[in-house]
Amino acid sequence: MQNFTFQNPTKLVFGKGEIARLAKLVPADAKVMMTYGGGSIFKNGIYEQVKEALVNHNVTEFGGIEPNPEYNTLMRCVVECKSKGVDFLLAVGGGSVIDGTKFIATALKWEGDPWEFMIKPGITHSAVPLASVLTLPATGSEMNNGAVVSRRERNEKFAFHNPACFPVFSILDPTAIYSLPAKQVANGIIDTFAHTLEQYLTFDNKALIQDYWAEGILKTLIEIAPKLMENQQDYDTCANFMYAATMGLNGFIAMGVAQDWATHMIGHELTALHGLDHGVTLAIVHPGVMSVMREAKWTKLVQYAERVFGITKGTDLEKIEGAINATEQFYRSLGVATRLGEHNIGEATIAEIVRRFTERGALLGEGGIVTPEKVGEILNRVK
Amino acid sequence: MQNFTFQNPTKLVFGKGEIARLAKLVPADAKVMMTYGGGSIFKNGIYEQVKEALVNHNVTEFGGIEPNPEYNTLMRCVVECKSKGVDFLLAVGGGSVIDGTKFIATALKWEGDPWEFMIKPGITHSAVPLASVLTLPATGSEMNNGAVVSRRERNEKFAFHNPACFPVFSILDPTAIYSLPAKQVANGIIDTFAHTLEQYLTFDNKALIQDYWAEGILKTLIEIAPKLMENQQDYDTCANFMYAATMGLNGFIAMGVAQDWATHMIGHELTALHGLDHGVTLAIVHPGVMSVMREAKWTKLVQYAERVFGITKGTDLEKIEGAINATEQFYRSLGVATRLGEHNIGEATIAEIVRRFTERGALLGEGGIVTPEKVGEILNRVK
Repeated sequence: MQNFTFQNPTKLVFGKGEIARLAKLVPADAKVMMTYGGGSIFKNGIYEQVKEALVNHNVTEFGGIEPNPEYNTLMRCVVECKSKGVDFLLAVGGGSVIDGTKFIATALKWEGDPWEFMIKPGITHSAVPLASVLTLPATGSEMNNGAVVSRRERNEKFAFHNPACFPVFSILDPTAIYSLPAKQVANGIIDTFAHTLEQYLTFDNKALIQDYWAEGILKTLIEIAPKLMENQQDYDTCANFMYAATMGLNGFIAMGVAQDWATHMIGHELTALHGLDHGVTLAIVHPGVMSVMREAKWTKLVQYAERVFGITKGTDLEKIEGAINATEQFYRSLGVATRLGEHNIGEATIAEIVRRFTERGALLGEGGIVTPEKVGEILNRVK
Repeated sequence: MQNFTFQNPTKLVFGKGEIARLAKLVPADAKVMMTYGGGSIFKNGIYEQVKEALVNHNVTEFGGIEPNPEYNTLMRCVVECKSKGVDFLLAVGGGSVIDGTKFIATALKWEGDPWEFMIKPGITHSAVPLASVLTLPATGSEMNNGAVVSRRERNEKFAFHNPACFPVFSILDPTAIYSLPAKQVANGIIDTFAHTLEQYLTFDNKALIQDYWAEGILKTLIEIAPKLMENQQDYDTCANFMYAATMGLNGFIAMGVAQDWATHMIGHELTALHGLDHGVTLAIVHPGVMSVMREAKWTKLVQYAERVFGITKGTDLEKIEGAINATEQFYRSLGVATRLGEHNIGEATIAEIVRRFTERGALLGEGGIVTPEKVGEILNRVK
């Protein structure tokens, strides 16, 4: 096991009916900016629940934060927050809204051009306190300090982490899932599965519990995915899904182990260049990473095959190929096309992504083993 | 899944060599009281490491906190802290030292008789900030807000919880295990196993990940226990043990599920009356609870048998009996006698414990299903 430091101060408030607790969770004297996305919260009743809980609070609103939140949109909110003296941010939405709100929270305290902190490798900077009401399980942003922001004018999409960006609290009401579009549920399942794999599928870290816990999340997703695809109204299934998404990226399974994240880094480029949904990019790239990097990930791939998919027969290589195939089929079972060609993406994009990573001198994956050349191999594997 | 609120702000600093980080983790201007136990930290080098790290800090010491920390001892430390204006407590030791330090931290801020907060069902009260350097994995106290304190003059042993008693940070260096007496290692394994069972072995909470995570801790303990009994100097085995003990009682596996704790409550009485080690009492009582309460725990006992011990053949009842037997054998494999008779405890003690719970009107276990009468049955089952 590797040495590590872990801290996650977010208060998790979980269950049906818990949105009403906003009344006490948000400081009474706060000047609140409530942020949200395209307006789904008006249809599912969450907007009304939030407003009712905060009826005695000072609340301004900023809507229209898009999927893959956009720098220019967020900067407009920053200006508005400054003009109103906002001192508490409440994100009501999915990962994009929460991520965008983390950017706003940090930008409000940042001197100079906020894009600076996006391109730094890791910052520790003060931020306006933020909290969230989660409407879409997927990114885990509700219980971590990371965020991903896009800048379309430059075709860029970067992640940043700031310890001050852990939400003070996050309210997770699984009934929010009842009215989600099926595509978003599928993307959320894929996102959670991929997050877990990024922290699990490296080498043997001699971290027994971390392995069991990651496998527990993966097995849970495999178990509930068909149920969710068939019926989005079963409370316990929704609760297990929402819980999985949070546990998949709150640091609990990352302690003391190496992490990969090559799939995410490559996927971000596909979103930046072609606007693909984040979850879709992961479904495309992950089987490619497993296949091309299988020598380095050998022990864990065998364990993954055996413990997660129950593939116990055959040679190690056969188990590994079985697990890669099972992963791709799991993603496809969620209605997602897992090949670049199915999205009309070809050689030009592969070349551009390799060029970008080469230009940045980027070495991805655990220990930097995924070179730009390997990125090319990976994308060619999933053409 | 049940609704829940979870928050755990403790910073975990894990790995060999991390004690040196005390220098920066403890506030530079703090008036520190360093608390410890019977002096093992002088033999294993931890005392020196701590002192060296804090050479530029203002540090007073208070040693002699005993196993099952004693009210009168702790109150002496409270008086000393007050006279010195202590504003930061650093517990260097195992669960007893950390628990005792939580009592001291709260007592320092409590008006009136501190035993008052011990007998309240749950308090939210300010406390002097505390941190820990863990020397003995067992209780999980390094990453939770609970503590158990004894008052021998009254034969009493009670637990309290105070949100202000989460350690600010805890340093876990697995090499501390290298020089522990084998008995303490065995007790720590039992304690961790029992903590996990208390949060797992109730009814089906429809909480899939929580089940997998609890089972992951249990399977890890079963895997590493014989290795630890044979060799206490293997770093990764020690790291997995220390990690298990913390994860077993930091709230991570308790979210959204019912909890039992009857075994602990009954065990505390055995310690109060006969001075048995905490871990030993758990090894005695747990198989009794499983056996007597098996109707209520049926589904989970079958799952426990199948998933943790791999008992997949036979009727459900045979699986359950197999699991209870395997649990007792696991405890015995650690060198602990699991029957009351082996500790010269008989009918008089059983009657006294039943009398105490009756007098208190205590209903133990998930949903209060363990009545004083059931406590009698449980203890008779493990005579």
